[in-house]
Amino acid sequence: MQMNFCSHCGQPVRLVIPDGDNVQRHVCVACGTVHYQNPKIVAGCVPEYEGRILLCRRAIEPRLGYWTIPAGFMENGETTQDAARREAAEEALAEVEIGSLLAVVHVLHADQVHVMFRARLPAPQFGVGRESLEVMLCDEAGIPWDDMAFRSVSFALRRYLDDRRNRVEQHHFTTIDFRRQPPG
Amino acid sequence: MQMNFCSHCGQPVRLVIPDGDNVQRHVCVACGTVHYQNPKIVAGCVPEYEGRILLCRRAIEPRLGYWTIPAGFMENGETTQDAARREAAEEALAEVEIGSLLAVVHVLHADQVHVMFRARLPAPQFGVGRESLEVMLCDEAGIPWDDMAFRSVSFALRRYLDDRRNRVEQHHFTTIDFRRQPPG
Repeated sequence: MQMNFCSHCGQPVRLVIPDGDNVQRHVCVACGTVHYQNPKIVAGCVPEYEGRILLCRRAIEPRLGYWTIPAGFMENGETTQDAARREAAEEALAEVEIGSLLAVVHVLHADQVHVMFRARLPAPQFGVGRESLEVMLCDEAGIPWDDMAFRSVSFALRRYLDDRRNRVEQHHFTTIDFRRQPPG
Repeated sequence: MQMNFCSHCGQPVRLVIPDGDNVQRHVCVACGTVHYQNPKIVAGCVPEYEGRILLCRRAIEPRLGYWTIPAGFMENGETTQDAARREAAEEALAEVEIGSLLAVVHVLHADQVHVMFRARLPAPQFGVGRESLEVMLCDEAGIPWDDMAFRSVSFALRRYLDDRRNRVEQHHFTTIDFRRQPPG
């Protein structure tokens, strides 16, 4: 959302390049506070139970009705693993054990960094969280690739399956930038 | 910095738990905007030239006068590798080649995630950037462990040296929380 006012003193902000900086920032005309904007972390996981993967169909925008792995914005005071575990509990009512780092996806058009982990679902116990329409365990052949919510999720799932086939657990970086390469 | 006013409309905010949430947020009393606060990413690298490591002595607070690897806040529109490379250029006037992921440090008391990479300095060319007092290439025996700026930096350096000794390039997660375990 557009920043118009200083969150510290309530007076208007202007977009200027502060002394010693080289990027435009929102700076308060009254108290001089510089308001930096930085990428946010989205943490998620690929929970597996006996070879099948836990997927959620989104009940919220963006991408309502499309499929995703449990993932969401990291909160202050938690680790990326904590955040991934919490999102699985919230979206799929699933208590997962977070494993190794799977993917780091720079989503440049959204100012987000997606950090995805492998995870183990110890028992086939899950449900439909309030941000989900439907939650399912599905085998590789059943993954709805054409109805995935986000390209970062497809990337993480494909790397997960490739690595599983090769019996390795690597981590994978990639960058998605719809400013240059529009979706579709 | 304390949030007192809505950055969208300029009216006061209150700390409340929004409907469907379970965490206190700053919510505008006038336009209802919920202002989320999330961890920031600090990206950095351990640049090596012929076995020696590039360190910077900080010219700015916090920890002015103490030693660090080049590192700083990730900006919107860049990857974590871009950010690590840019910080080496700014703080040490060094053009580095970013390598593998070295460390992810959750700094819970600061609401930061530090992401550190290995890096190669192709030539012994560097200088003193405006946020540094001094920049040096030092061998393992010369690292000023007692004068390091941040525990995340010491962690990354130790893991770097251990892995180098063992001829592996692993990545290492850790959590630092001065809310429970004060420094010193």
